[in-house]
Amino acid sequence: MLGTVALDTVKTPFGERKEMLGGSAVHFAMSARLFTPVNLVAIIGEDFPQKHIEFLRQKGIILTSLLKEKGRTFRWEGEYKGDLNSALTLNTELGVLSAFRPCLQQAEKRIKRIFLANVDPDIQRHLLESMCKPRLVGLDSMNYWIAHKRNALLRLLKQVDIYVANDQEARSLSGEHNLIKAAKWLVRHGPKMVLIKKGEHGVLFYTPGFIFSLPAYPTDKVIDPTGAGDTFAGGFMGYLAGVNKISRKTIKKAIAYGTVAASFNVEGFGAEKTSRLTLRELDSRINIFKRYVLF
Amino acid sequence: MLGTVALDTVKTPFGERKEMLGGSAVHFAMSARLFTPVNLVAIIGEDFPQKHIEFLRQKGIILTSLLKEKGRTFRWEGEYKGDLNSALTLNTELGVLSAFRPCLQQAEKRIKRIFLANVDPDIQRHLLESMCKPRLVGLDSMNYWIAHKRNALLRLLKQVDIYVANDQEARSLSGEHNLIKAAKWLVRHGPKMVLIKKGEHGVLFYTPGFIFSLPAYPTDKVIDPTGAGDTFAGGFMGYLAGVNKISRKTIKKAIAYGTVAASFNVEGFGAEKTSRLTLRELDSRINIFKRYVLF
Repeated sequence: MLGTVALDTVKTPFGERKEMLGGSAVHFAMSARLFTPVNLVAIIGEDFPQKHIEFLRQKGIILTSLLKEKGRTFRWEGEYKGDLNSALTLNTELGVLSAFRPCLQQAEKRIKRIFLANVDPDIQRHLLESMCKPRLVGLDSMNYWIAHKRNALLRLLKQVDIYVANDQEARSLSGEHNLIKAAKWLVRHGPKMVLIKKGEHGVLFYTPGFIFSLPAYPTDKVIDPTGAGDTFAGGFMGYLAGVNKISRKTIKKAIAYGTVAASFNVEGFGAEKTSRLTLRELDSRINIFKRYVLF
Repeated sequence: MLGTVALDTVKTPFGERKEMLGGSAVHFAMSARLFTPVNLVAIIGEDFPQKHIEFLRQKGIILTSLLKEKGRTFRWEGEYKGDLNSALTLNTELGVLSAFRPCLQQAEKRIKRIFLANVDPDIQRHLLESMCKPRLVGLDSMNYWIAHKRNALLRLLKQVDIYVANDQEARSLSGEHNLIKAAKWLVRHGPKMVLIKKGEHGVLFYTPGFIFSLPAYPTDKVIDPTGAGDTFAGGFMGYLAGVNKISRKTIKKAIAYGTVAASFNVEGFGAEKTSRLTLRELDSRINIFKRYVLF
């Protein structure tokens, strides 16, 4: 998976953490690793703490394409006020990320299931085009690229299977307010499948002929939502990669796993909870979740 | 059920209707009637078209406590722009509603299942206190009363079993942003059960020891959402009254019926679609809904 490794400083009504391990690649990997081997394609600076590298390695994440370059690691600083749904970005320091060119080991080019987390769409495309006949490609992006690199993103959409977006992104890219109309618009522009994340309201999956929707796992223990979307994507893509089969049944199950993985993410700072998560805990919460949503 | 009968003028991107039959009591009754007899406690003015009365009677609604008073019928005029989730109120004319004192037939005082739709909490309490040992009491309100008659509303909460609120109302009354925390706060203040309506994002039900959540029925045919919440409440309360049993199973089913009934409501202006709805159509959409949300 392609994404960012970051040092996050986060303040919420429940406390504060300085320069903890974060970034889309880390959050994604913490849930995906429960289902499948995860190769992490990202960049760090010389200042990146060695303990984080050892920690990722301990978790079984494959780091052969984690580049270390001169300069500082990507840093993000944000705060959540009473409404824990949206972060106020206090500071972003791109550091080595601004000159990131992913570079894969030869063997990694034959990986068949790829997730391109939110980075510059040109970098995403560069990585995708270096791959040898991938079978399943997932893509995430963000409002910044929709506004500033819309054409590059639209071109990239034609090359992916699943586009994962939050509700605002889906609306802003499609110009449609109704999320099903937005999903239909997106499918007309490339991806076979669209997965719209609605934060505390859950997700909506759309592919022609098949709609699926789940609420979020109901929890009142929201400590820090940073990385919930990436954790969701990791559970979703990880499960699909693990079962190596795309059907209505596996997609539903993948969405349920992603949903439940994200619920663990928000219950602690950064990846504190997801990094200790086991498949057993995930399955046990899936069973509780079933009682919450099945009628 | 206690509520309003109104003449609604509505404009949406899909068209306009002038002085059509509306109001919380009408929308509620259109879905509740599919499960149980519905007595309508409301007020109309002298100008209320006779054809609407005949229409309600045809639908089997019991109108013995529909008061007709001197003055004009309650009128509401609103517009929905691109975002069909929130109405812009252009005009409200209370008319006879401003002096409404519900007055029940003796026999109606023994009705056991009651829904108090959004009117002045003092009127709601007045009606409730005239009832003879009701078994199940549902309550709806709105932001206006939360802001202007908070104490009256809090007092009333202690006398009801189910409080049905939208997410904004639940947040504003409880002061809690997290909806589960808000629901817990509400339960501490009276009702055994809380049902939070989240519009296009579905609903969240809470009672101590039992949480249940469903997304909305996914539809891209939203024509006019006016009355969706009341239609939901009508399906929910109507089903519970019909089966005459409160259990986890019946609550889940009631929420599913309410959800699906509301999806018909939004697909036409006012009660155009729900007034023609049959239980068969509702059941058939419940089955489609199951495919959309069960994993």
